[in-house]
Amino acid sequence: MNDNTPNAGLRGELATLCASVPPADTSAAAAARARLDRLTKPRGSLGQIEALLERLAGATGHVCPTIARPVVLLAAADHGVAAEGVSAYPREVTAQMVHNYLAGGAAINALAANAGARLVVLDAGVDADLPEGPDLPRLGIRRGSGNIAREPAMTDDEALRALLGGAARAGELADAGADLLALGEMGIGNTTPAAAITSAVTGAPPDYTVGRGTGIDDATLARKVAVVAAALARWRSVGAPADGVGLLAQLGGLEIATLAGATLGAAARRVPILLDGYITAAAALAAVALAPTVRDHLIAAHCSAEPGHAIALEHLGLSEAHGAGPLLRLGLRLGEGSGAALAIPLITGATRLMREMATFDEAGVAEG
Amino acid sequence: MNDNTPNAGLRGELATLCASVPPADTSAAAAARARLDRLTKPRGSLGQIEALLERLAGATGHVCPTIARPVVLLAAADHGVAAEGVSAYPREVTAQMVHNYLAGGAAINALAANAGARLVVLDAGVDADLPEGPDLPRLGIRRGSGNIAREPAMTDDEALRALLGGAARAGELADAGADLLALGEMGIGNTTPAAAITSAVTGAPPDYTVGRGTGIDDATLARKVAVVAAALARWRSVGAPADGVGLLAQLGGLEIATLAGATLGAAARRVPILLDGYITAAAALAAVALAPTVRDHLIAAHCSAEPGHAIALEHLGLSEAHGAGPLLRLGLRLGEGSGAALAIPLITGATRLMREMATFDEAGVAEG
Repeated sequence: MNDNTPNAGLRGELATLCASVPPADTSAAAAARARLDRLTKPRGSLGQIEALLERLAGATGHVCPTIARPVVLLAAADHGVAAEGVSAYPREVTAQMVHNYLAGGAAINALAANAGARLVVLDAGVDADLPEGPDLPRLGIRRGSGNIAREPAMTDDEALRALLGGAARAGELADAGADLLALGEMGIGNTTPAAAITSAVTGAPPDYTVGRGTGIDDATLARKVAVVAAALARWRSVGAPADGVGLLAQLGGLEIATLAGATLGAAARRVPILLDGYITAAAALAAVALAPTVRDHLIAAHCSAEPGHAIALEHLGLSEAHGAGPLLRLGLRLGEGSGAALAIPLITGATRLMREMATFDEAGVAEG
Repeated sequence: MNDNTPNAGLRGELATLCASVPPADTSAAAAARARLDRLTKPRGSLGQIEALLERLAGATGHVCPTIARPVVLLAAADHGVAAEGVSAYPREVTAQMVHNYLAGGAAINALAANAGARLVVLDAGVDADLPEGPDLPRLGIRRGSGNIAREPAMTDDEALRALLGGAARAGELADAGADLLALGEMGIGNTTPAAAITSAVTGAPPDYTVGRGTGIDDATLARKVAVVAAALARWRSVGAPADGVGLLAQLGGLEIATLAGATLGAAARRVPILLDGYITAAAALAAVALAPTVRDHLIAAHCSAEPGHAIALEHLGLSEAHGAGPLLRLGLRLGEGSGAALAIPLITGATRLMREMATFDEAGVAEG
């Protein structure tokens, strides 16, 4: 059926990458905390922004990191499971929206520009004849994933190649100066694999992890829950592989695997990763399954209207209880990296506070 | 005791200003709603950002408003009530922080720069010898307000002058091209008058409207509740004036009155007003008491850690239930306009979506 012969070379390469992801630099985080308490403001008065700055110091290893060259990496792919009628939109919209990104007419174009971020679109497996080129690099692994209700999304070998392809892309972006990697995605039907991965990793049942995506009706919602339940049953029937490769191959999608790899690649370079919505959180779940230290490099841009998103974020440690709650709660459910792009100015603003504010001593202000 | 002789000329001027504040342009708001549904994204998928865009269209009268020249107006003043020991900081910090703003070392300097906003600092009544000049215009009404626990904050005449002075300042900023007015304030002790105004307007008792401000302990918190209760008792003893002028004169402060006036002035010019924290919400309560149509021009940047802030915002109609909830919930309690500055990029980003996104027809994307 599937070519599941694991490629030992690729597996070794992935293991090396995973082992290279550092944990948080706790001394940088502590120094950031100490500096925050000397700046001319009441202690703790910047609330969650202060927690963010401690986290960024831990992730980057710099007390006052500079975030001046953010990049939105938008990976697009098609999903076999769209054939089950789980989306309000036809499958063709994936490719149509890629054209829209290239023409500059989508939400992410406006929001990335507003945030001063570079937008990089990647064809991770769209099932259409898209124009490959510098504006649209192609991963070239396969066109569209399998229908996870009935078959694996891809082979383990394909998942490995998508992971390493994504990591390589993140490495290239880091080489070019990217200091924040915001994740974005497009793929009609892709909240379904996101829900399947979230259920598989967290144990939450499908009726908790499945939501209305782009806006489906009650009947479609019930069908989507059944589809995710079928995918999970199939995953269990093959031994419920919980490592990142098995999860992605059985339940994922090509853009999800690519973004999981990009997450690993960025974390290995100490470039913080800014998650967008539910699908990017699912990619992060797979990355964390491969390298738990990835957690220390993640920032949640927002918590979306998809109910499973909060479940995934909680599992990633990206909640208020962990001092790492999502920066925005605006009921977004667009994807594309739109929520991440909206949050970028909060992050650049936070880092400017650390670099530019005077201390009580410097400014001659009484500490109270 | 107080010179409460109302100045008929100033009262007339204020009445004219209040009458000139237009209500929302409902046809522009409806056209914005219609355009949002034609843009290449699932309907409603930008959540609260879509509600914001409808609101901005109503406020400005433009379906696709441009917000490219935001201004943070930071009004500073001292408060007689600081003598009651309601703050963690000594009164001198008000002037020290004004020097910090002028030197560029405060949080608002970094955050306004990050947002591409001009920062305008106004001495609305600081009790110190500050250097008046182009960088620090002075209102010149009085140095510091009265202690509201024992006496009015100012006379009605002084409140009128502060209101009209703030409105004139907003008008000048609009003339210079400002297309969004973000409010900021500095004044040691000023969460106390904010709580008093919020209690007076909403009827919420002081133990609901008083919070820890910049970070006071339990004993100080209890004292602060008693101070607000005393101020309210005094306000009732003079007839509980509920008009904006009486509220501000009895319970306010000079920066609060100035910002209330700036709110009226901006609204009259259809320049949307972006509220920051609790003190700016109290200023808006006074402005709305004078001209209810002001409500349609307000945007809540955030909901702070101060418990009374949510009460004030609810009264202003700035809650999720009204489709106008605060954009951020980050546990901020700094003031200065810091939360407003953090929210500005969300607003500029939102307006770019309206102007720059393609419609389904334009992009050749299927509508689902």
